[in-house]
Amino acid sequence: MFAPVYLDYNATTPLDPAVREAMLPYLDARYGNPSSRHEYGRHARAAIDAARAQVAEAVGAHSTEVVFTSGGSEANNLFLKGASASLKPGLLVTSPIEHPCVREPARQLVRLGWALETLRVDGAGRVDAAHFDTLMAQRPGLVSVMLANNETGVIQPVAELAAKARAAGAWFHTDAVQAVGKIDVDFRALGVHALTLSSHKLYGPLGAGALIVDKRVELQPLIAGGGQERGLRSGTENVAAIVGFGAACALATARRAAEAQRLAGLREVLEGGLTALGATVFCADAPRLPGTVFFAFASIDGETLVGKLDRAGFACASGSACSSADPEPSKTLLAMGVAPALARGAVRVSLGRDTQAADVERFIEVLGHEVRALRGLAAVAV
Amino acid sequence: MFAPVYLDYNATTPLDPAVREAMLPYLDARYGNPSSRHEYGRHARAAIDAARAQVAEAVGAHSTEVVFTSGGSEANNLFLKGASASLKPGLLVTSPIEHPCVREPARQLVRLGWALETLRVDGAGRVDAAHFDTLMAQRPGLVSVMLANNETGVIQPVAELAAKARAAGAWFHTDAVQAVGKIDVDFRALGVHALTLSSHKLYGPLGAGALIVDKRVELQPLIAGGGQERGLRSGTENVAAIVGFGAACALATARRAAEAQRLAGLREVLEGGLTALGATVFCADAPRLPGTVFFAFASIDGETLVGKLDRAGFACASGSACSSADPEPSKTLLAMGVAPALARGAVRVSLGRDTQAADVERFIEVLGHEVRALRGLAAVAV
Repeated sequence: MFAPVYLDYNATTPLDPAVREAMLPYLDARYGNPSSRHEYGRHARAAIDAARAQVAEAVGAHSTEVVFTSGGSEANNLFLKGASASLKPGLLVTSPIEHPCVREPARQLVRLGWALETLRVDGAGRVDAAHFDTLMAQRPGLVSVMLANNETGVIQPVAELAAKARAAGAWFHTDAVQAVGKIDVDFRALGVHALTLSSHKLYGPLGAGALIVDKRVELQPLIAGGGQERGLRSGTENVAAIVGFGAACALATARRAAEAQRLAGLREVLEGGLTALGATVFCADAPRLPGTVFFAFASIDGETLVGKLDRAGFACASGSACSSADPEPSKTLLAMGVAPALARGAVRVSLGRDTQAADVERFIEVLGHEVRALRGLAAVAV
Repeated sequence: MFAPVYLDYNATTPLDPAVREAMLPYLDARYGNPSSRHEYGRHARAAIDAARAQVAEAVGAHSTEVVFTSGGSEANNLFLKGASASLKPGLLVTSPIEHPCVREPARQLVRLGWALETLRVDGAGRVDAAHFDTLMAQRPGLVSVMLANNETGVIQPVAELAAKARAAGAWFHTDAVQAVGKIDVDFRALGVHALTLSSHKLYGPLGAGALIVDKRVELQPLIAGGGQERGLRSGTENVAAIVGFGAACALATARRAAEAQRLAGLREVLEGGLTALGATVFCADAPRLPGTVFFAFASIDGETLVGKLDRAGFACASGSACSSADPEPSKTLLAMGVAPALARGAVRVSLGRDTQAADVERFIEVLGHEVRALRGLAAVAV
């Protein structure tokens, strides 16, 4: 298998070898249904309990606040649909830079009678504080603002926003899928009512995620049935994936600080190289995740460049992976007021655990070559 | 690890070694997000496409009719909530012996304005045909009747029921989670509009299931977002689990006929032994799954007996695993008119790929011992 250098950690991460080791027994002899009362079932139940404690600890929550889901998209849908079903239709406030798995359920709520207001964001990709205050004065029922953006890596001042939303009487949710494992995330310190995280973004397996939720929030289940997860998420628990998710959370907590520093150093080198090549680095002055760089070259198409880089041995993204079937330029950049022509050039590089300094140096070298070639073609075409 | 003889295959199945082999690369170097356009993403996408074809073939459907979900519970919720959201609230018809992941979303629909009618079942656990006809005359919008029951193993005449429902203008769904891999299941021959199956009931991994759905059924997604699965189920696909699900479906198709014959033979021996010990075998004369036996001894509590058997080295169930936290006797038996006192004695033994004749013989021996001991205690207590 041809294996390009992987620079797309925000799309998904490789499984940590220690996480895989933790999972393997549950893909072998430890196969019980956690709801079964016999030996096999009890072992599976104990494994889930242990993983629940690991996930809770990673985000400063209590075990009883963890609702396991199949992933981040389900957790975001569970919050928006589950909380709204327990309220009279009112106002939902969210941002234009949310992941589609917040934006789309928000649109579905409009069909059920909810009003939807979308926050303005500034040129640095941060939510407009004055507009937020204006909308809080309208006493929304629900507010959802992400902690860190998947494309730009920009970190929102969620603790401040949540405090204002609480004062306005709203339930505040944050999608922290891109933040957990990369920056310090503490459920209590953030003061949010609900928080989403995802296993496969932090070196855990696909198929597991969680909604951390304050017990005062009344939720209707999205998946109703056997009553698993305190009745909030039915279906036989994906034991191996949950065990892996727990192990990944424990590792993320242990490694986060050192790894964040290392990735920030690599990013500095990368951005220096990009600037020297004439790229625009988006949101360079905003607080951002350590390993995420979103950039564009004027008059070079992002999709085309990503294709060239892939063939030259570097896997990166032209937009958020989950919506890269979407031919429109990045909604995040458009919301920030970036011109569509430049936004169409956007490329995302996200660094991670296996990224070495040599990879970054070689990437800049190859990128320079590809950019010069594409500019040459453009010049010839003119 | 103490490993009792596993006789609870209807709760969950061990992973087939060949399925595990198929999955492992996707828990290792093949970790791409299927929505990514680079090498890693394309490999993951191709793996999902191949698995989709395997799942479709196992149930005689077309690949484009397969919607992957996180499991059977999600698929049942997706059909009921997704199809109802595209219709004006009307009549929903279902049976009292459905799995909770059909019964509970049905109850949620009542809160959204749907009328719910529950079919009568006869003493053999089969849907009452005359009552079905009466309810079809009321022109329901949605009908959901399971193909095979998780507790009794009774097989419903779904093709006949679906034909009547179609004639009445309803969308007909069947939960085939317990049937696929055990009996022949053909989407076209059944004539249903939607069918649910689950990976972990057929020697595949937890975390994967599918709704097979006729394209004429308009579905709203339960999990909205990035637009995966033709917009019907968003969220990054659980690649390893889907690959395993596909491999398990291919194996199930290849092995089903021979395995069904073998299990039916073991069941005959088991039921002979049970009858000799004085047990009541439920639904013995109805068409049933080959490896499922649901029985009770008068005046012996099922939970107690299952606990004794577990300690004696046999893992079986006192009710359906997914609702065994429920202290009420089996809803399936109560719907059949079985007296609550006898229903409280119910024990389910479900046989599978690793069950050998010696296991069944030894089980009957140990069961006889436990039953005599419990009867002795009861006699002393009197």
